[in-house]
Amino acid sequence: MTDRLAAQFAFLAEADRLKTVLRATTLNDGSRRENSGEHSWHVALFAMTLAEHAAHPVDIGRVVSMLLIHDLVEIDAGDTPIHGDHDPDVQALRERAAADRVFGLLPPDQGRAFRALWNEFEAAQSDDAIFAKSIDRVQPVLANLENGGGTWPEYGVTRDRLETRVGTRVARGAPALWRHLRARIDAWFADRPQV
Amino acid sequence: MTDRLAAQFAFLAEADRLKTVLRATTLNDGSRRENSGEHSWHVALFAMTLAEHAAHPVDIGRVVSMLLIHDLVEIDAGDTPIHGDHDPDVQALRERAAADRVFGLLPPDQGRAFRALWNEFEAAQSDDAIFAKSIDRVQPVLANLENGGGTWPEYGVTRDRLETRVGTRVARGAPALWRHLRARIDAWFADRPQV
Repeated sequence: MTDRLAAQFAFLAEADRLKTVLRATTLNDGSRRENSGEHSWHVALFAMTLAEHAAHPVDIGRVVSMLLIHDLVEIDAGDTPIHGDHDPDVQALRERAAADRVFGLLPPDQGRAFRALWNEFEAAQSDDAIFAKSIDRVQPVLANLENGGGTWPEYGVTRDRLETRVGTRVARGAPALWRHLRARIDAWFADRPQV
Repeated sequence: MTDRLAAQFAFLAEADRLKTVLRATTLNDGSRRENSGEHSWHVALFAMTLAEHAAHPVDIGRVVSMLLIHDLVEIDAGDTPIHGDHDPDVQALRERAAADRVFGLLPPDQGRAFRALWNEFEAAQSDDAIFAKSIDRVQPVLANLENGGGTWPEYGVTRDRLETRVGTRVARGAPALWRHLRARIDAWFADRPQV
């Protein structure tokens, strides 16, 4: 029992480092960049609040669990901004190595269970994972809208790029959410010259 | 549907402010104070990882949901350090008013459900709430231990005070966790003169 608990606490202590990984998006008030720890809390709360809008019925407990662990690999691999330029194959390799190490801190049975949940999220094939991925994309859109466009100008984000990189993924898991956000996005772009 | 979603997004945008509420505890590396948003993520991950150690069987999905919303009242009422001095009756009044306002942003049926979950956490009578409360106390203890005692000296925390203010509550919901942490706490106090 003591070895098991020591392994679990070692994992939870390592997880603390996610609070120092900075994302592209700021807080809604624009005061500073968001970190991946507080982002993980916020998306879990989004999922809990918006579960009724999932395209297909989901097990919300599993969705929340996925979102709580989905970014832990960033402790080693860093955050990958959706509107940034990066090699997805290189990043995927880095993230798998990070998953090996971070989930490997847990007792083996639990490490396998957490890793399977992370693999499911990454594969984005199950209804639970598809909804979780949608929610992960919704939260920064709301942050940018609340912050007057937020970091979209900095990343040169166009209306079309939001549709292809964000909208299609959100709509796959939660079409009602994208309809609502798209109306707000259209209003934002209508108020400024096209980039 | 649009009104309902607008209310849900208004609640989720307001929740973002929890990321600006600072707690007494620092990150494990001591680099800065922790905020209540990232704390809420971390305790949810603690619960998910440590559920097997609950004193009584729990519905881990409900426990995690409680922990995701347990600190939202701090947006209005601020954080109350466990080792600080404050009037618990005044703080309780402030927190109930905050719960009225923050959960009142949601659609009425959902606001009532979230409020009921928060009330259950505060009452600490159900097995789920007792375990959630234990976990909420475990996380800062681990942070302080990882950070060489962390903010205990600043708050003049003694071994006895940890036992009465933290240990009894942790042990009520998760006795195995307190046995493990107490051994580490005893080792820490043995290494320094009693405050």
